[in-house]
Amino acid sequence: MNENFDRIGKAFIEQYYKLFDSNRAELKVFYRDDSMLTFEGVQAQGSVAIIEKLQSLKFQSVQHVITTGDCQPSADFGVLIHVIGQLKTDNDQPHSFSQTFCLRRDPVNPTNYYCYNDIFRLSLHHG
Amino acid sequence: MNENFDRIGKAFIEQYYKLFDSNRAELKVFYRDDSMLTFEGVQAQGSVAIIEKLQSLKFQSVQHVITTGDCQPSADFGVLIHVIGQLKTDNDQPHSFSQTFCLRRDPVNPTNYYCYNDIFRLSLHHG
Repeated sequence: MNENFDRIGKAFIEQYYKLFDSNRAELKVFYRDDSMLTFEGVQAQGSVAIIEKLQSLKFQSVQHVITTGDCQPSADFGVLIHVIGQLKTDNDQPHSFSQTFCLRRDPVNPTNYYCYNDIFRLSLHHG
Repeated sequence: MNENFDRIGKAFIEQYYKLFDSNRAELKVFYRDDSMLTFEGVQAQGSVAIIEKLQSLKFQSVQHVITTGDCQPSADFGVLIHVIGQLKTDNDQPHSFSQTFCLRRDPVNPTNYYCYNDIFRLSLHHG
């Protein structure tokens, strides 16, 4: 079990959304070839495809406001992260979202972590 | 990687919430001694403590309506599940929630899975 899961998870949340809101292309530092993204049901695998998907999102400015970030140790010394927050794009009203990440240890440098799983959904419900 | 992640994840979602809404105590079948729950920021570890926490929730009737359930293969042949839905308790109005599970293979019987990680949050935002 990863004893530092909470510190690692909280630091990731802060770094990830800061970079997302300032320079999406730079998010590639968090992904590797085996990383997976499911964004509103659309899947992408590998850092190149993931960054392409994130870059294709049709807004000029974006701001994430994080409400909660819960972390747990996951299998194989990983860190599971569950985020609830609000997303403000351009001049739209804020949208509620939730996102799950699973960080994995770098097999070569085990003090480094990368984003292996990433699932994003806006909290929109029918009816 | 677990090739059957989507089938396993979707079957879990259906079984889990059906049992939650009909007989919460029976959810113990999904948890083991190393399972972790973070429910609205409150942590519980092990099936006994987790069921105690779920049983202590102050409502008589509950109904989960699932909007989306996204699945990905996770480390160590596990299955990561991200759920968005609405929760209706007693005569209250529906609340939006999101929940993340990570299923792990039973080390003794690898065709069986149990819930290793469970993080639940109502989608409530300040301001």
